[in-house]
Order: sequence, then C-alpha cells, then structure tokens
Amino acid sequence: MPTRILVLGGDGYLGWPTAMAFSRAGHRVAVLDNFAKRGWEHELGIRPLVPVPTLAERVRAWRDVTRREIELFVGDLIDFDFVASVVGQFRPDVIVHYGEQPSAPYSMIDARHAAYTQHNNVVGTLNVLFAIRDISPETHLVKLGTMGEYGTPNLDIEEGYLTVSSGGRTHTFLYPKTPGSIYHLSKVHDSHNIHFATRIWGLRATDLNQGVVYGIETDETALDPRLATSFHYDEVFGTVLNRFCTQAIAGVPLTVYGRGGQTRGYINIRDTIQCVGLAVANPADPGELRVYNQFTEQFTVVELAERVAETAERLGFDVAIEHAANPRREAESHYYNARHSKLLDLGLRPHLLSGDLVGGMLAAIAPHRDRIDHGAFVREVQWVPQAVAAPTGKGRVPRGAPAPARASAT
Amino acid sequence: MPTRILVLGGDGYLGWPTAMAFSRAGHRVAVLDNFAKRGWEHELGIRPLVPVPTLAERVRAWRDVTRREIELFVGDLIDFDFVASVVGQFRPDVIVHYGEQPSAPYSMIDARHAAYTQHNNVVGTLNVLFAIRDISPETHLVKLGTMGEYGTPNLDIEEGYLTVSSGGRTHTFLYPKTPGSIYHLSKVHDSHNIHFATRIWGLRATDLNQGVVYGIETDETALDPRLATSFHYDEVFGTVLNRFCTQAIAGVPLTVYGRGGQTRGYINIRDTIQCVGLAVANPADPGELRVYNQFTEQFTVVELAERVAETAERLGFDVAIEHAANPRREAESHYYNARHSKLLDLGLRPHLLSGDLVGGMLAAIAPHRDRIDHGAFVREVQWVPQAVAAPTGKGRVPRGAPAPARASAT
Repeated sequence: MPTRILVLGGDGYLGWPTAMAFSRAGHRVAVLDNFAKRGWEHELGIRPLVPVPTLAERVRAWRDVTRREIELFVGDLIDFDFVASVVGQFRPDVIVHYGEQPSAPYSMIDARHAAYTQHNNVVGTLNVLFAIRDISPETHLVKLGTMGEYGTPNLDIEEGYLTVSSGGRTHTFLYPKTPGSIYHLSKVHDSHNIHFATRIWGLRATDLNQGVVYGIETDETALDPRLATSFHYDEVFGTVLNRFCTQAIAGVPLTVYGRGGQTRGYINIRDTIQCVGLAVANPADPGELRVYNQFTEQFTVVELAERVAETAERLGFDVAIEHAANPRREAESHYYNARHSKLLDLGLRPHLLSGDLVGGMLAAIAPHRDRIDHGAFVREVQWVPQAVAAPTGKGRVPRGAPAPARASAT
Repeated sequence: MPTRILVLGGDGYLGWPTAMAFSRAGHRVAVLDNFAKRGWEHELGIRPLVPVPTLAERVRAWRDVTRREIELFVGDLIDFDFVASVVGQFRPDVIVHYGEQPSAPYSMIDARHAAYTQHNNVVGTLNVLFAIRDISPETHLVKLGTMGEYGTPNLDIEEGYLTVSSGGRTHTFLYPKTPGSIYHLSKVHDSHNIHFATRIWGLRATDLNQGVVYGIETDETALDPRLATSFHYDEVFGTVLNRFCTQAIAGVPLTVYGRGGQTRGYINIRDTIQCVGLAVANPADPGELRVYNQFTEQFTVVELAERVAETAERLGFDVAIEHAANPRREAESHYYNARHSKLLDLGLRPHLLSGDLVGGMLAAIAPHRDRIDHGAFVREVQWVPQAVAAPTGKGRVPRGAPAPARASAT
C-alpha cells in the first residue's frame, strides 16, 4: 500500500517539487495551499523569475506528463475545521509541512506583518497538531524548521538537543534557540509546540532545521516547463545564492550586506527533496521528536558571492561584488559549527556547490533574463527602523542601533 | 515627577491590586483591559468568590476611598492601533503586563481554546513590543511569565539564563524551557519574543517567572469591599492553594491530583505586588532582558493540602484530602530546585505560608461560603483526551497516555 502524503504549502518553492517527487516515487500525494504567497507577491509587487501556472494547472500538467494524480485541497491552516476535514478525508500517513510564511524580511516589515507571521505560522501548526491528535494520531508530522532558529551561539550547534551536566545531574534539553527575526522566532515557537505534542500526546514528529536553500531545478521540474517551481530572487523571498546568481545574469553587482563574514549552512533544492524523503522513510516513534540539521555545507556570504562571481566570469559575464549596509542585526564575524550528520547517516548523498552546479543555475536563469526586475534586489526592510536607531530625544542611543556594516544570509 | 505606570490586564486577580498599590505609592497609574476574563467566566459558568464591581466602578471606588485617580483604557492588545494609541497618549515609563489568558486548563480545552490562547498572548505581547519600539523606546516592560515555563528538568533551574561550557567554549543561553501546557508554551513564546526585542531593538524588559500565586487580600483590597480582587477557586482559573482553602470552607474534600508529589514554587499575592514594585524600581538597562524567578517557597501539592487541612482542623473545620486521577500530564515525583535569590537581593521580604496566613485566608473566605459553587472545583479538562489515550485501532497505545495517578499545581 502506498504511503499517503499530504504536503502543506504545496504551491511553494519547495512544496510543489516535493509533492511531484513523492508522486513520481509512487506515493499517494495531496497538496494543500491557501495561495497566501501569491498574495504577498502582489502586495510587494514582485513575481517569480519563471512564470508559474496556477496550482490546479500544475496538477493537470503533472497528470498530462506522468499519468499520476496529485489531489488538491484549498484552504487556510488557520481554520481548524478545514484542517480537521482534510486530515479526516485524506487520512495521511505523513504530513510534510511547508505551509508557513517563510521570509524573515517579510516578518520584519512592521508590527502588522510580524503579528501576521507569528499568528499564521504558530496557529497553523497548532491546528495541524490538534487535527493529528484528535483524528489521526499515527500520522507522522515532518515539519520544516530552519537552522536560523539556533542563531549563532559561541558553541557547537548540536542536532536538536543539548545535554547539560551540572552538580552531578544531567538533563537533555531541546537545544536553546536565539533566532534573529520575527519569522525565525515563529519557527522556534513551532518547535516548542511540536515538542509538547510529542511529549504530552505521544505524537510522532520530525523537525527539519533546514539551511538556506538554493537551486532552480529538480528531476521533476525539468520534465516540463509547466512544472517549474516558484523561484524568487528578490530581497524578501529570494534566498541569497538564488539572488546572487540572478544578479550575475542581470549584470548588476552582487550585493553583500556588510563584510559578508556570517556563516550559514546551505543546501541544494534537490537535497531538500532527498532529505524530506529520508525523513518520511524513517518515521519518528510515537512520542518522539526527531530533529535533523538539514544542510550540506557551511559558507560565509562573501564566499558564496565569490563562487558565483568566479563561475560567471568563467562563462563570460562581468561580475562585481558590492558591500552594502546591512538592513539586519546580526553578528558579522562569529563562531559557527553546526552538526549535520544524521541525514548523511540515513543515506543522504549531497549535491555540493561546485562550479558546475553554479554554472547550471546560471544557465537555467539566463533564458529568463528579460523578466528580471532589478528593483526587486533591494527592498530595504530594516531590522531596526531609523526612528528607533536614532537618539530618542531623551539622550539615549539604544544598544540595538545597527553597527555600520554587517552581512546577511537567509 | 511620578513614574507613569500602565497596567495591562488591570481588571484581573493581580492587575487590579497592582494598580492600586502603585497608585497609593504616588505613581501615575492607568489600567488597560478588554474584559476577556469576564467573558471566560460566562463561558464556563463560573464566577469569582467575592462579587467584583465593573472596572469603571472600581476606579470610582478607588477615587472615593483614596482621592487618587487611576486612568482607564478599554480595548484589546490584539489591536495594534489601539495599543499604539494608548502608548502614545499615556507615555508610560513602565508597562506592567498581566494582560494574557492565564489558565493552563483553559488553554487545553480544545484546539480552538489553544489557538485562542497562543494568538491572544503572543500577538498581544508582540504588539506591546512594537508599540514600545516605535513610540516610546525608553519604556521598561515588566512582563509576567511563569515558573511553569521551565518545566521540571533534572537540573537546578537558574534565574533566566544557563551558561554552558563545551570544548573550551562558553555560551550563555536563555534557560531552555520544557513547559507543560499550551498556556505555558505561550509564555515561553513571549519570553523568546521579548528577548529578541531587547537584543535587536535595545528595549528594556524584565521577565518575571512567577510561581503559583495564592491569597485573597492586599493592603489596598482591604480598604473597602468594592476594591476586592477577583478571587477564583474553580479548576480553570483558581490556583491550587486558593482552591484548597475554598474547599476547606465549603466542607468538601481537598482534591489532590494523584499522589501530589509534584513540587512547585509558590508566592503570596502581597509578595507579587512587592516583587513587581522591585522590578519597576530597578529597571533593566536598554538592551537588557532581566529575568527573576518570582516565588518564595517550594512545596509539593500534598504538603499544601496538609497545611490547609491542619489549619482548618485547628479552626474547627472537618477536612478530608482526596486523591483524584490527574487530568494533566506531568511528572509526579521529580527533582526540583529553582533559584530565586535576585528579588531577595533587591529587598523582597516574603510573606511565608504560615498557619496564621492560611488561617487568615480561611477567615476571609468564610463569609462568602454561600456563594461557593461546589461544581466548579472539578471541570475535568483533560491534557490527553480519552479518544487519544485509547488504542487507535492500529495496534498502538500512545506514549502520551495518562498514567493512573498524578498530581497538579498551577
């Protein structure tokens, strides 16, 4: 009997390729989305690099190309009755949960966007947990978290848990989190809620602390242009390597925030699909929260920019790297050593960031050069608004005021 | 110039006595409330032991009795424009934030109450943080958290932070939290959001991880019957010692969940007022999150029951202690050693739980004996619903199934 897999956020950058990969592997797949992301695109006046059909059209194209069915549920995770009805109807063995507002800058626009992000993400996930508990307690929840939950502590980042000994006693905690945006905080809140659901209700869950994803193509998106994924290169929804590659093709400088010294974990979109597949194939036990750090390599931002520039220049593009003031508040130079062995132990075979791989991305972006909106690269969402950073008139300069030059990743 | 103090949740069990105490001490005080708690009382069919006038009437009674003014703002913290307008109008030096859904059982009723609790508490607090950031960045936020955020780790509970050394490196984390209800989780989420606001925006905040509060009277409530606080003895909003004292007066057995072996920190309502006063008088620096563990003594639940029973019997009441099945999921016997020295260092002089103190509570409750609703002592909000605890038909008994007999505190 095939596994029944429900992909939340199935219209997204990662959700749609994930759904196709599971469908092609013979599982019974459904996607769920409320198309909020398409609304945010309209709100910000941005669009994906490649035109993306509606989700209903994508599902039809998938049927045309592969003779396989992907079921479609349209609704909002904030609506518990909807979530419960989908879980009751589809009876998923696994729920893969990408259905959240995924952008740090979007969450930092203002109070309203911050509240929206935390409400949407935290309550949506809570509703999923309650629906599993009340209707389908065997269902394995595979939840996308982020490496950004951890922040940059001056200690090795373990895979999910930290064992502390003191005064002859030992306790294993969820690894304590120090995230850098309202969005990243929402994922930390989710992790605590999911941990509770496993501890108290005996649910099964896997939390994937994913690094910064890059890439435009998977085996399935390559089957047909109508199956393309929603690739963003703008400051709000585009991750840094996707943005750098698009800037190289557009002939504008790669914008590194500050000196570019921050280190983050990175992962290719093909490896995201692989990792989620491994998480599904190796379900958590009842009562267990598995945590994987889902990335394959660590880079500083400036290293990434240099790799893109080198490859682009080799291919005949003229590429400059520009250091701009950092809109974020983050350490520019810091210790970073995050463990990421559990998925390798399960069999992950990484696609590492070679020159060939960057060349492939550039080649995939190049045909769409005319669609690139140069104004989308810099939106200037400030982590600390100027009104706050300025002295308050009571003679204080807040400690939170931005340092002159910093640099950014996700 | 007097300190301008805005008390969020100023109609509540602790908010109203806090507001009166600051007003009497000569500060300029405003209370804010949306009267949600009065709505929950109607929803659950419960009421406070002592009749409580409307907040407008309480403010008028305060003026009659003391010739002092308390300002009144009515609205919802979920509404950012309202929060911003109050902060802009009143320009508080300090915001004391009690304005949350404060009950663990209420949060555990079902998915809807869980989502409500996290949305209400987390977004309300986020809005307060953004309003401070954007309008009044010098304001010191004094936020009521709970000792329940920590859970019961097998290590000493430090006051807010945990320093970990490993491989020659050292890092100080927010103390990692393992809370036991959806409500307690909401407070953990708040703590992370507030930490972010201090780290990134340079705000000043104090997080008071309060133990289980008991008591019915403060110096100010005693001034006039119209100034009484909203004292609950029911399972949902009544804390355990308040419930035990009321059960003793009602002549029904004190209901201890399970063997009653869990240990928690406790604090008298008079000391809550004292501690909040100390937090206000010793503001956090810009960029600093101070954390105090706000309780004075540790007890097991069964110790509390025995203290109440002893005193009540001495006063001529006939009191039984009954061990009932625990609706919660919590360890019944565990290590517990939570530090709580910072407020003592600032000058806290605790009112400890003597026989006289219990006797005083019993004497204050006795005149209202006829108003006690015996049906309110047990509402049976289950942490793990029976449908979940039962085998699922797929041959699994969840690890989350409740053990036969456990015991409870908050």
